[in-house]
Amino acid sequence: MSLSESKATAILLIHCPDSQGIIATVSEFIAKNNGNITFLDQHVDEVKRIFFMRIEWELDGFAIPADKIGEYFDVLIGKRYSMEWDLYFSSETPRMALFVSRLPHCLFDLLARWKSQEIRVDIPLIVSNHRDLEPVAQQFGVDFAHFEITKANKAEQEAAQLELLQAHQVDFIVLARYMQILSPEFVSHFPNRIINIHHSFLPAFPGAKPYHQAYERGVKVIGATSHYVTAELDCGPIIAQDIIRVSHRDSVDDLVRKGRDLEKIILSRAVWHHVRHQVLVYQNRTCIFT
Amino acid sequence: MSLSESKATAILLIHCPDSQGIIATVSEFIAKNNGNITFLDQHVDEVKRIFFMRIEWELDGFAIPADKIGEYFDVLIGKRYSMEWDLYFSSETPRMALFVSRLPHCLFDLLARWKSQEIRVDIPLIVSNHRDLEPVAQQFGVDFAHFEITKANKAEQEAAQLELLQAHQVDFIVLARYMQILSPEFVSHFPNRIINIHHSFLPAFPGAKPYHQAYERGVKVIGATSHYVTAELDCGPIIAQDIIRVSHRDSVDDLVRKGRDLEKIILSRAVWHHVRHQVLVYQNRTCIFT
Amino acid sequence: MSLSESKATAILLIHCPDSQGIIATVSEFIAKNNGNITFLDQHVDEVKRIFFMRIEWELDGFAIPADKIGEYFDVLIGKRYSMEWDLYFSSETPRMALFVSRLPHCLFDLLARWKSQEIRVDIPLIVSNHRDLEPVAQQFGVDFAHFEITKANKAEQEAAQLELLQAHQVDFIVLARYMQILSPEFVSHFPNRIINIHHSFLPAFPGAKPYHQAYERGVKVIGATSHYVTAELDCGPIIAQDIIRVSHRDSVDDLVRKGRDLEKIILSRAVWHHVRHQVLVYQNRTCIFT
Amino acid sequence: MSLSESKATAILLIHCPDSQGIIATVSEFIAKNNGNITFLDQHVDEVKRIFFMRIEWELDGFAIPADKIGEYFDVLIGKRYSMEWDLYFSSETPRMALFVSRLPHCLFDLLARWKSQEIRVDIPLIVSNHRDLEPVAQQFGVDFAHFEITKANKAEQEAAQLELLQAHQVDFIVLARYMQILSPEFVSHFPNRIINIHHSFLPAFPGAKPYHQAYERGVKVIGATSHYVTAELDCGPIIAQDIIRVSHRDSVDDLVRKGRDLEKIILSRAVWHHVRHQVLVYQNRTCIFT
Repeated sequence: MSLSESKATAILLIHCPDSQGIIATVSEFIAKNNGNITFLDQHVDEVKRIFFMRIEWELDGFAIPADKIGEYFDVLIGKRYSMEWDLYFSSETPRMALFVSRLPHCLFDLLARWKSQEIRVDIPLIVSNHRDLEPVAQQFGVDFAHFEITKANKAEQEAAQLELLQAHQVDFIVLARYMQILSPEFVSHFPNRIINIHHSFLPAFPGAKPYHQAYERGVKVIGATSHYVTAELDCGPIIAQDIIRVSHRDSVDDLVRKGRDLEKIILSRAVWHHVRHQVLVYQNRTCIFT
Repeated sequence: MSLSESKATAILLIHCPDSQGIIATVSEFIAKNNGNITFLDQHVDEVKRIFFMRIEWELDGFAIPADKIGEYFDVLIGKRYSMEWDLYFSSETPRMALFVSRLPHCLFDLLARWKSQEIRVDIPLIVSNHRDLEPVAQQFGVDFAHFEITKANKAEQEAAQLELLQAHQVDFIVLARYMQILSPEFVSHFPNRIINIHHSFLPAFPGAKPYHQAYERGVKVIGATSHYVTAELDCGPIIAQDIIRVSHRDSVDDLVRKGRDLEKIILSRAVWHHVRHQVLVYQNRTCIFT
Repeated sequence: MSLSESKATAILLIHCPDSQGIIATVSEFIAKNNGNITFLDQHVDEVKRIFFMRIEWELDGFAIPADKIGEYFDVLIGKRYSMEWDLYFSSETPRMALFVSRLPHCLFDLLARWKSQEIRVDIPLIVSNHRDLEPVAQQFGVDFAHFEITKANKAEQEAAQLELLQAHQVDFIVLARYMQILSPEFVSHFPNRIINIHHSFLPAFPGAKPYHQAYERGVKVIGATSHYVTAELDCGPIIAQDIIRVSHRDSVDDLVRKGRDLEKIILSRAVWHHVRHQVLVYQNRTCIFT
Repeated sequence: MSLSESKATAILLIHCPDSQGIIATVSEFIAKNNGNITFLDQHVDEVKRIFFMRIEWELDGFAIPADKIGEYFDVLIGKRYSMEWDLYFSSETPRMALFVSRLPHCLFDLLARWKSQEIRVDIPLIVSNHRDLEPVAQQFGVDFAHFEITKANKAEQEAAQLELLQAHQVDFIVLARYMQILSPEFVSHFPNRIINIHHSFLPAFPGAKPYHQAYERGVKVIGATSHYVTAELDCGPIIAQDIIRVSHRDSVDDLVRKGRDLEKIILSRAVWHHVRHQVLVYQNRTCIFT
């Protein structure tokens, strides 16, 4: 899809009860209004009878002005099919906040991709409960906000964090090995807009110290899972997952070392999908349209 | 797509020069005639500006009789967009001939899948240039035809093979480690209907003894490639490819052993795609719509 | 290690508390007695301070007669280091019983490998709680024993199975998708000699219907795990594990289909390791020396 | 092997014609002199009858002073078995120079690992034929040397580079997507000490624009290969290789993007092996002892 990247596009993510003719109706809506479709993918959940679609088209020459597309679409099509839909524009750069603790590998990886323009985001802010990675933030010229978290001050600190995120107009949050559990209250402000990396193949080894658990169990494969954060710990919809092979030779430290590579690649892959608006969440599962 | 398997479907594979509105036109054609679309996937080759599509819908209640669908589609849509298209019906079971030499693993794997109804094909015939695997054919109750091949008799034997294939109404051929090179003349009778498994990650190590070549080169990964056979050796469109990791500990015999697992899985995967009409060939590349 | 396969070898699997000089002592014992070492691999569990070793050498010209090696080794070395050890000879062909229910893919795969001499075992017996796969047993010329299992007759039937296994001098059992849970009593007769294939990436999705669980959880990767059976369900030492990538497009039936390929490959890989005496179990972890 | 990391160790890499008793002799030499072996792995190339070994032991309490180990080993053992051997000490930090052109991903990845102390090296110098990545060097506080290369000045510039490398006491060079071919003369100064990353699964697609070649060939898998640089382009001994799956949906730009992740991981993995002295090169193949 690279050739179309230079041209401004609109992206629609849709889901609704399955029925006949939806693809025809939606694609006709765009084609008739002179939109050149550069991506169309759909999926039907045959169990729940839900229809999912991602469609992208070039705005150049499109008959409906960008700021009216949502309205027209909803009136002409969305309501008829009881659709839930989101509309995005490739010209809008999402604003991403990074939450970190002490481990730098995911942070470095995301910052390097941002600097290299591999991912098109703005990074106005790095938040941490420790000061260890402040030099990395400085090195890349990003604001660093330190919030020490204790049991006593957690609610208060989260409120302050939310305020800061709002002040920076943050669209979504990436937990780049952030070693704090966010409260359901906090999470509710960013539904399907907080991306976490868990260092195991979920649902195996949820919670703390998954590499130690994996070592104890003697697995031959370790994994990493990037998912949206929900109120229930490590149970949110999975965006990306992958694994690496290990053997009896690998100590816990080796698992940690090998896992780092996996974590940063999988987290960045999830961020890529999110930023490109390729992720459609329904209940606790995702469609990834690539 | 499993839930729809029990219902008879039609499958259209299409490619044509890209232009606006094709998806809408095709899906509308089906929807308006009361066809329930169970699969739609499309792809645009942005370099060559070619549009590709696979669409599958349930025939139950479809307004156009099955034997007229091709004609109607071509008149109403195909000609307008200069489409090349193929129409298949899930109710038709393809007839597959197996060509083997002495190695049994791919043969066993395909026969077991056939017996277990993992792949829906008829296997009227096993052809071989050796008698070694005749007991396997007998064990599974399939006709076995032995054609000894020499330089002198090759053209003649291929002619006899073609006659036999025709007599058995064979739709496509699978070379399950068949150690003979088919002549371009033979190949021309089954365009994109002969599936080969090459025991390397093509284009690395084409031709003979790829595991020996891989060992000599000291690779850390070996592969297998399933592709349609074309006149040029090991250069046809790739359907499926995968790899397995190896190390300095692996002798050539180990590569051969590990490779066997890969070969049979990849060949069977390619056969699956072919039988399900998921493969669209354009020039020397494939779209695999799954 | 293929070149040495033609020559008869002895294989020692050793573990003991770690201390200095073990490798030297063991390898010297073999070298001094004119044994040509064709494989030596060792591992130290740094946490538990346990030393593990697999050593293989050619018997041709070895000073100690084969039937005395164990005694000499134990007296001269084993006792000194408080070793637990097992001695195997490549000339002895292990006798494997297959337990199956209704799914044929793992059974076909193992029988095909046996017929093709990929794995060197004798298969005197196939045991099943259903009659579905009796034709497969007949097709491959293996005895088939049917044991209907109910809650009421389970203990009795297991006793009869054990008797039959003994009568056939079975060395180890492979559960090739056997859909019955063996009692701890039964398991105790074959410690680390019953190999199971579980159709998930354990410890994720233990117990029944793991593909349904995986689908519900929306994972992007599914796995298969081959392990020794212990009294606790799905908790025995893992021998082999691998995964395959899946997506939102995959229905439960697709997971089942893709999983089949994984299951048979992983189970056969575990059997390979077991038959080659490459597996060393300590507590609930395995060393796989390859 | 992590627990032993804190203690100073010596590492011997050995190869010699295979004969009986080498393992016993070497391990006895260390054990008798009170060295605690923390790693021993060996391999026999059965085709060429060459023995390979990596052995690591703790220096604390070892009877022979560190600066005499090489001499003693050679006199007592090395000469007897016609060994070629290298001796390293974990206390010595290798000095690594990075050569880059315009692509930053491998550079960022290696610098981040260095800053995070994932890899224990000193990086005294970044060399480039372009100025694009000078800011990255500055950001990480590493000297940056710019050498514009033309056909006319190449020999001269390489001489100047060699001088600079010597001045910085560089032990080995990493070509982190350096887009210049080094002359055989240059390479001869760093035998098996220049690590390159080639963005394909070598030997497939050597030379320029491998992703374009891979796209044209329609492969379903792309790879990356890290190897030592030899006089012949892209033909040196392979240290690490891995792959990522692609499909017809992936444009050349997508291959480039996906390949970046692979390249940086594989290059860093090769650097890890090299820095840990886990790589033994013999003719054009490597043993990787991990």
